Amino acid sequence: MNVVQKYGGTSLETIEKIQAVAKHIADNKKPGEDIVIVASAMGKTTDQLISLAKQITEDVPKRELDALLATGEQQTVALLAIALQELGIDAVSMTGFQSGFVTTDFHTKARIKEINTERVEQLIEEGKVPVVAGFQGMSENGDITTLGRGGSDLTAVAIAAHLGWDCEIYTDVDSLHTTDPRVYPEAKQLHRITYEEMMEMSSLGAEILETRSVELAKKYNVKLFLGRTLENDKSRGTYIMSNNNLLVEDMPVTGISFQDDCTIFNIKGVKNDGKTVADLFNLLGELNINVDMISQQITGKNECSVSFSCTISQGNELSSAIQTNSVLSGLAIEKQDGLAMISLVGVGMATHSGVASKVFSILATEQIPYYQITTSEISISVTVDLEKKVKAVIALCEAFGL
Amino acid sequence: MNVVQKYGGTSLETIEKIQAVAKHIADNKKPGEDIVIVASAMGKTTDQLISLAKQITEDVPKRELDALLATGEQQTVALLAIALQELGIDAVSMTGFQSGFVTTDFHTKARIKEINTERVEQLIEEGKVPVVAGFQGMSENGDITTLGRGGSDLTAVAIAAHLGWDCEIYTDVDSLHTTDPRVYPEAKQLHRITYEEMMEMSSLGAEILETRSVELAKKYNVKLFLGRTLENDKSRGTYIMSNNNLLVEDMPVTGISFQDDCTIFNIKGVKNDGKTVADLFNLLGELNINVDMISQQITGKNECSVSFSCTISQGNELSSAIQTNSVLSGLAIEKQDGLAMISLVGVGMATHSGVASKVFSILATEQIPYYQITTSEISISVTVDLEKKVKAVIALCEAFGL
Repeated sequence: MNVVQKYGGTSLETIEKIQAVAKHIADNKKPGEDIVIVASAMGKTTDQLISLAKQITEDVPKRELDALLATGEQQTVALLAIALQELGIDAVSMTGFQSGFVTTDFHTKARIKEINTERVEQLIEEGKVPVVAGFQGMSENGDITTLGRGGSDLTAVAIAAHLGWDCEIYTDVDSLHTTDPRVYPEAKQLHRITYEEMMEMSSLGAEILETRSVELAKKYNVKLFLGRTLENDKSRGTYIMSNNNLLVEDMPVTGISFQDDCTIFNIKGVKNDGKTVADLFNLLGELNINVDMISQQITGKNECSVSFSCTISQGNELSSAIQTNSVLSGLAIEKQDGLAMISLVGVGMATHSGVASKVFSILATEQIPYYQITTSEISISVTVDLEKKVKAVIALCEAFGL
Repeated sequence: MNVVQKYGGTSLETIEKIQAVAKHIADNKKPGEDIVIVASAMGKTTDQLISLAKQITEDVPKRELDALLATGEQQTVALLAIALQELGIDAVSMTGFQSGFVTTDFHTKARIKEINTERVEQLIEEGKVPVVAGFQGMSENGDITTLGRGGSDLTAVAIAAHLGWDCEIYTDVDSLHTTDPRVYPEAKQLHRITYEEMMEMSSLGAEILETRSVELAKKYNVKLFLGRTLENDKSRGTYIMSNNNLLVEDMPVTGISFQDDCTIFNIKGVKNDGKTVADLFNLLGELNINVDMISQQITGKNECSVSFSCTISQGNELSSAIQTNSVLSGLAIEKQDGLAMISLVGVGMATHSGVASKVFSILATEQIPYYQITTSEISISVTVDLEKKVKAVIALCEAFGL
């Protein structure tokens, strides 16, 4: 079956590993089956390039950073194509630009505007295997851009969506678990999960697959498979697919994810005219800051308080931006660091009452204080003190049978 | 004055050196003066990338090698642009493609077909400093190509030609000398040299500047300057310009260059029908092999012998290609290695009789046997045994006052 396969940087960090991946691809490619390979930069290349640039300045201009970083993936795909050709596979390396990724010019966090897969499709028709550099594209005025965190996954999913193929994401972990096994070693493997659950898990801290990739897969109904590089036994990986393909089992919580570097902003005494809050979220949008756990409460006549969470580094970026903003600089802003956000996710949750009350009573029994709470159709998130995180995760996993 | 400045890889091999070059550019840029910077890959990057690819296969597919190697220059220009911006220069890095270099698809030795400097010129108009990746371009079907040896110089000269600017090539040597000072330490500095002399010197072994760059400079009358990176005293460099700008002094020989890895091919009993020789040189053209010292002699009725020289590695490439060629495989081909070619160059030579006889009598006095001889308007070349090379160069330099 035609498929887009994506290999992560740790699976390609040496020439030996690149050759092993090439051999695995060659061994498993069936005659008449078409594949597209997407690759990340070898091992720590991206970090090394960033550190070179930071030797010059802490504040690296983002357009140039993108031009620098894009070389990492370009090197990997050239080397992987060489290794594949050596094994008789007619592979052709392609940069983001060559594979038709047109993006916004928001450097280091560009968004895909359109994909012209004409050249990729032509190569496939000629029986060739395109080996596409993940993570990168080109803006409409011809500048090299990168897609930000998880960008290579996004590249793979976008191509799969365009071609109407499945997409396999290979990394150095076996599969998804109900929660991070480093925190709860008894965590169970998840063999199937819905897009929605995966999105919640990702956006709530599970570092395996970024939300945007899952979002795109859901939108175009791309069947995703997560597995360990070089592992042939698919039963050891995780399929991510639409609800329709899954039996929703009698299990309210599918998994628990968490995020350590969590900052909570509390903004009090905001004028309840709609405009101030809009300005604030405009600013967040301009800075491309992803916030979670947004809540707003009316605290008086024409006055409200707004709170939300984000990562510590984005929180710092936001703090400095607020200071130079004419509208927002006057507000009373409290920032609380040292928190972890724990999220319980499950499509069954909506049909099961009592999940929230069970969560709160477990935390109370364990004497773990909790702060902000937010919920969605399929998730409940709470913040706790970072040092209580492990205790809370273990207690919740045990209680929900994960 | 507006100028294209090109910096070689050894001048940019560390972040410190990149910063030093950036500072030198910033310190010397006068208000209202426009510059374009062209850069090579940092230090040994190209060699390191080649050795990565060779870990996979000795016979690296050339399209992929180009995609791999082009990342070297892309990294340098991004880092140099970052360093320049840090010093307040509004620099913008550009790949070969972005700067409009359209080439043939002869990978690893592509030739420039056209240059669309639109974007470069637009940046200059906006007061910016384009920092262009040397050595690379893109073929018409969108593949990344590299321009072969001396490709970054060619990039710089081509941009200068297009803009009608001068071109400065900065490396880790001061200037040209009458001959290689490592062989003849008393060799004098050359402050001015004509394009023609430089072309002869380059094609005959002086490794400072490739013939194609000088050829292009001559064609578009681009004034070239060769100098040491970070050196401000221009009197220590060498200007390369047209004959018209130079006083041809009363000096028949301007310089002596030489080439160590010299192979001579002797092909005897070639049918003198024109076709066999044409086939041979077609093959040389297909392999992109540069030959020197071509000579043909009629050796009998309808029979001739052909000889020419090339480098040892190209000679080996040629030997294997001849074996698989249906027309040429039957010929009696002798190959002689272990030779050096010594060339005396000077625009004054054509107007001075007796240079050749003086050369031969010096070699005879010194008891240095010599083999093939070829001459052009402004040069005389002889091959000698490699171990006699130094003795011959010193004797000739002393005799011609170099």
